[in-house]
Amino acid sequence: MRPSDRTPEQLRAVTLETGVNRYAEGSCLVTFGHTKVLCLASVEDKVPGWMRNTGQGWVTAEYGMLPRATHTRGRREAAAGKQSGRTQEIQRLIGRSLRAVVDLKALGERQVVIDCDVIQADGGTRTASITGAWVAMATALGHLVSEGVLKTNPILDQVAAVSCGVFENEPVLDLDYEEDSNAEADSNYVLTGSGTIVEIQATGEKRGFSRAEFDRLFQLAEIGCAELFVKQKAALEAALKA
Amino acid sequence: MRPSDRTPEQLRAVTLETGVNRYAEGSCLVTFGHTKVLCLASVEDKVPGWMRNTGQGWVTAEYGMLPRATHTRGRREAAAGKQSGRTQEIQRLIGRSLRAVVDLKALGERQVVIDCDVIQADGGTRTASITGAWVAMATALGHLVSEGVLKTNPILDQVAAVSCGVFENEPVLDLDYEEDSNAEADSNYVLTGSGTIVEIQATGEKRGFSRAEFDRLFQLAEIGCAELFVKQKAALEAALKA
Amino acid sequence: MRPSDRTPEQLRAVTLETGVNRYAEGSCLVTFGHTKVLCLASVEDKVPGWMRNTGQGWVTAEYGMLPRATHTRGRREAAAGKQSGRTQEIQRLIGRSLRAVVDLKALGERQVVIDCDVIQADGGTRTASITGAWVAMATALGHLVSEGVLKTNPILDQVAAVSCGVFENEPVLDLDYEEDSNAEADSNYVLTGSGTIVEIQATGEKRGFSRAEFDRLFQLAEIGCAELFVKQKAALEAALKA
Amino acid sequence: MRPSDRTPEQLRAVTLETGVNRYAEGSCLVTFGHTKVLCLASVEDKVPGWMRNTGQGWVTAEYGMLPRATHTRGRREAAAGKQSGRTQEIQRLIGRSLRAVVDLKALGERQVVIDCDVIQADGGTRTASITGAWVAMATALGHLVSEGVLKTNPILDQVAAVSCGVFENEPVLDLDYEEDSNAEADSNYVLTGSGTIVEIQATGEKRGFSRAEFDRLFQLAEIGCAELFVKQKAALEAALKA
Amino acid sequence: MRPSDRTPEQLRAVTLETGVNRYAEGSCLVTFGHTKVLCLASVEDKVPGWMRNTGQGWVTAEYGMLPRATHTRGRREAAAGKQSGRTQEIQRLIGRSLRAVVDLKALGERQVVIDCDVIQADGGTRTASITGAWVAMATALGHLVSEGVLKTNPILDQVAAVSCGVFENEPVLDLDYEEDSNAEADSNYVLTGSGTIVEIQATGEKRGFSRAEFDRLFQLAEIGCAELFVKQKAALEAALKA
Amino acid sequence: MRPSDRTPEQLRAVTLETGVNRYAEGSCLVTFGHTKVLCLASVEDKVPGWMRNTGQGWVTAEYGMLPRATHTRGRREAAAGKQSGRTQEIQRLIGRSLRAVVDLKALGERQVVIDCDVIQADGGTRTASITGAWVAMATALGHLVSEGVLKTNPILDQVAAVSCGVFENEPVLDLDYEEDSNAEADSNYVLTGSGTIVEIQATGEKRGFSRAEFDRLFQLAEIGCAELFVKQKAALEAALKA
Repeated sequence: MRPSDRTPEQLRAVTLETGVNRYAEGSCLVTFGHTKVLCLASVEDKVPGWMRNTGQGWVTAEYGMLPRATHTRGRREAAAGKQSGRTQEIQRLIGRSLRAVVDLKALGERQVVIDCDVIQADGGTRTASITGAWVAMATALGHLVSEGVLKTNPILDQVAAVSCGVFENEPVLDLDYEEDSNAEADSNYVLTGSGTIVEIQATGEKRGFSRAEFDRLFQLAEIGCAELFVKQKAALEAALKA
Repeated sequence: MRPSDRTPEQLRAVTLETGVNRYAEGSCLVTFGHTKVLCLASVEDKVPGWMRNTGQGWVTAEYGMLPRATHTRGRREAAAGKQSGRTQEIQRLIGRSLRAVVDLKALGERQVVIDCDVIQADGGTRTASITGAWVAMATALGHLVSEGVLKTNPILDQVAAVSCGVFENEPVLDLDYEEDSNAEADSNYVLTGSGTIVEIQATGEKRGFSRAEFDRLFQLAEIGCAELFVKQKAALEAALKA
Repeated sequence: MRPSDRTPEQLRAVTLETGVNRYAEGSCLVTFGHTKVLCLASVEDKVPGWMRNTGQGWVTAEYGMLPRATHTRGRREAAAGKQSGRTQEIQRLIGRSLRAVVDLKALGERQVVIDCDVIQADGGTRTASITGAWVAMATALGHLVSEGVLKTNPILDQVAAVSCGVFENEPVLDLDYEEDSNAEADSNYVLTGSGTIVEIQATGEKRGFSRAEFDRLFQLAEIGCAELFVKQKAALEAALKA
Repeated sequence: MRPSDRTPEQLRAVTLETGVNRYAEGSCLVTFGHTKVLCLASVEDKVPGWMRNTGQGWVTAEYGMLPRATHTRGRREAAAGKQSGRTQEIQRLIGRSLRAVVDLKALGERQVVIDCDVIQADGGTRTASITGAWVAMATALGHLVSEGVLKTNPILDQVAAVSCGVFENEPVLDLDYEEDSNAEADSNYVLTGSGTIVEIQATGEKRGFSRAEFDRLFQLAEIGCAELFVKQKAALEAALKA
Repeated sequence: MRPSDRTPEQLRAVTLETGVNRYAEGSCLVTFGHTKVLCLASVEDKVPGWMRNTGQGWVTAEYGMLPRATHTRGRREAAAGKQSGRTQEIQRLIGRSLRAVVDLKALGERQVVIDCDVIQADGGTRTASITGAWVAMATALGHLVSEGVLKTNPILDQVAAVSCGVFENEPVLDLDYEEDSNAEADSNYVLTGSGTIVEIQATGEKRGFSRAEFDRLFQLAEIGCAELFVKQKAALEAALKA
Repeated sequence: MRPSDRTPEQLRAVTLETGVNRYAEGSCLVTFGHTKVLCLASVEDKVPGWMRNTGQGWVTAEYGMLPRATHTRGRREAAAGKQSGRTQEIQRLIGRSLRAVVDLKALGERQVVIDCDVIQADGGTRTASITGAWVAMATALGHLVSEGVLKTNPILDQVAAVSCGVFENEPVLDLDYEEDSNAEADSNYVLTGSGTIVEIQATGEKRGFSRAEFDRLFQLAEIGCAELFVKQKAALEAALKA
């Protein structure tokens, strides 16, 4: 049995609350159980220097964790004077995942900056970030469409992410911290609403894992993302009505 | 009339919610109108190097603002590679204010680290931080007392803070961002429950201000802090019961 | 009695020597007893990027302390790779204080950069810096007027600063290091020649302080600044004649 | 047809030259076509601070690219003052991959530091690094065994890595730069000699990719790694004889 | 006798291999015995900001050492976040030495960036770098002439460098690491093909040295550079034919 | 004729004023014409980590230039976040020069830190720094001897430095800024009182220079240093009597 009493195919309670910041063009507070990430989308009218005069836009993401989001307090990255390798790895993944479902030409010379700040961490912060960030971004761009700023919506598809792992030799969906820190293998899947794969990251932690295990992990990811797509749609609809 | 329709002596709606983080030893989400700061107190069993073997403890604070806490997105300090002068000034003030009401000997060789992270900003983030940080710290230390780790409570007094300013030539209490960015003078007061002054910072923004104006600003601060002390007591009581 | 045998209302010996650097547009070596700060004003024909094409000028300040300005050698900030929070706090204060008495429009698109470098420290370096910086800046701008570069003098008023504190429970003027490091309360006052307040910073060090104590500290600051304004005028006059 | 005239299942010419540095405990210059990486293993008698007194050892890796390893000169990271997110991501991957096949207890309180420096880049530098790094590490540890410093060889298995991608809609093995920069999907596989998976990283570049494509990419990786394992064995044998 | 069995006037085996990088406009792998430095010349079509619109070009150099180029592994400068004082000193010297023999006007608004990366170090890395860098630079500029991009060759002369030192009280040519780390005096000479001096750096290590010793060291440097000029010419000729 | 009307063999007016800082163990304000450097020696009871328990001491130096020490204001290194290559090169030279005349064993496990801060610059700041630093250091160590802390004086000899250059094709002694910035060759000589050479740095600026020119420059340096040794002795004597 899992420490959280879930079945292997069961997600934690997932919520996607929109309208949580009065300034950002799109916002979503995503929770996966005790994991809580604030995702804010800012639309800026200029693009990075290397992209100017290309007629295209850009989507980028930054990720951070509050120092006491975790069991023991971590060092504040701003005080340390740099972002850790882990932070950079995660924010690059979030940006890549979102760009995979955006038509950068339709966006025009605009930049969407997504800030994913982890308020509380209990495993799966990067996949929760991607899932919530899509809602924040789609809200912001949806508003630009309804305001007539954009003629066509640059959002091509949904994108969501979930982690899966081998815990006590059984593949399970959506690891919490207790499972994650003891898993034999850990993996993250970023999938689109139309069923294609955007990113797979799978790592053997204590031992290598087998192809059969991988296939089951992938199957669990598909189950999890199917649920997340439904929740994203509902959240976006609510946000655009508000 | 003030942009927010308040009287000169009126605070914004202030809330102090405790128990908002499952890991921190003490926590308080403080709001002053649209300003929202998450204050978390972490108790660590070691003190900074320069303090070892003195038998005393230490209280320190770090302050940060989420990039999109403000109207337009600011640069993430972790990405910029350093904390701004403003950030450092504020976190030094928070630390000083809290240490003024703590008996560092009674604390023993422990460090309390307070993280004040601004989730949303609408003026007065440093004074809200101090007010909320005291609740988080007092909660954490109150628990150490009830657990028997500390024999006497190191908390000597309450401390709260509020800003006042001269807006359209009238002294008013608790400036929001609209007032703050147009004020003739801006000031912050850190006062204790027993009526002493811990810190005054008063600055002429567009012009110097007069002694008479200062006296009125100080009077408003006393009115505001009196309300805050009542709210702090209620919040702490609720937190320690929980 | 004070360690320096002064009365509570007595400044240390204060000198303001001008013409101490052959390149700077204005210069002043200010001493308050053993505290010695070299204040140099540089006039540059361009303003910071965010200010271009506004028709206005800017005044900014940088502060530094030579490593062995103090009893025990401190770390060189250039070697440490960053300015301390204290340094940034002080240089922001100096810049704000000077801008309070300058008409930035009359200055035109020029920047005055003030460098305050502490050659020797014995308490009160930030207030000495402000006092000397005004002389350096006024010298530089006075020359621009007499050279016909500026039509009207952008200097609107004098500004000077002094520290006061509660030492052995008695409010005293112009703390030296020995008093400063043992004071119950420490405060800095930045006042203009016409009697308005530019900045007050008052901090309880060992204990909170009372309103009555604050009122006496403020009175002492007025006494001290009155003397400083006379000395500034004489120094400026001498500098402009030279 | 591929730009390099290879079949989809064909690796570039791969060489693993050992004994290429006179100081390092193990060394391997690995080439995959025009990609050339110098992998050096240094054995140190102390472990990172957080690992002291655990009786275990550690394996870590650093990665760098000479500024003109690429078509146009890149900025030197030492001059820029920091390692890019990409660099950190890669060196974390190399370290993780090597640790997956080392018994850290058998290593004792020693650290193996692997330096992978890219002398010339033509795609696949991270997978070449892992493949060569294993040879360098196994050489160093093999020597420690034959010198009697270690009783048992901490190397548990071989580990090698290869990239595969979808280029012009066909899955191909071992992308060179021309393919890599135009691929629809790009992926890296780190596999062990005994057939388990250590790491999979698969990314859709221009579009998401399908599960069928992924399965073929994985199959190609197994074909490629089988060849690499043979070459690693031969190179290690030669190195230990020398 | 010298540890390497050389006579006092004898260089180590010196090789200058060109064509060692497929992207750089000029390249040379220089070896002095076990010292091995990769020198790559990159030609860029823009100059540093302070030089724009002057009609002149610029030559600059960067220097680095692979972490395990030495007996014990050194810290990677990119990971440390800055270049050491020694590195900066050396790269400034290389740049100055090369500029001494280049007509910057004839170069036009172009920049030649020389990267000298030490693959293996056994003393004399800075002098080997200068010697090899000249070959790389001259190759790159020779190609620009033969391609008709430049009308006249900006190379005015050859430049080469060698170290000499006082080892066991005898002046010797071209110190290796064993000699260098025990020398009484160490010196570097940068000379031109036409016999002028570009740079002398001579340092007493364990003791001051005499004028007579200096004169002998200088004589040895002239002997060494004469050999190096012959080898440079041959290497350049080969490179331009290729 | 030289711009300053000096003969080729003539130093600028040189003064060495001691007792200029009330905290430093040794101090010397050195001027060479308009060049003014404050040299302070601090004696610390601990040595750098890599030197602990060797029974030896260490001498090190730091160099800085006030931002407006020069004609146009330079950037403050502490604000820039790093020391320039030039600064590091100079402070390494000063440290090396002083260590050449100190018996580090006789010093015991103590460190002398020399701070050379340029108050005003008109050429020759590094050589003035060395010349003044010796006085500051010798004062500090002389006091330790007279206080009985040290049994033997670790100072083995005097060390002084001067620059020489080829200006308008004539070798001249002690370049000021006007000469320095137009010189054909520039060189610095660090010599000991007993006539040995500690360091020579000679650089062709606009052209290579000849051996004959070098010989004359060296001769001028000997003339200059002879004068400096006399002045150093007098300054030290005065300082130790005070």
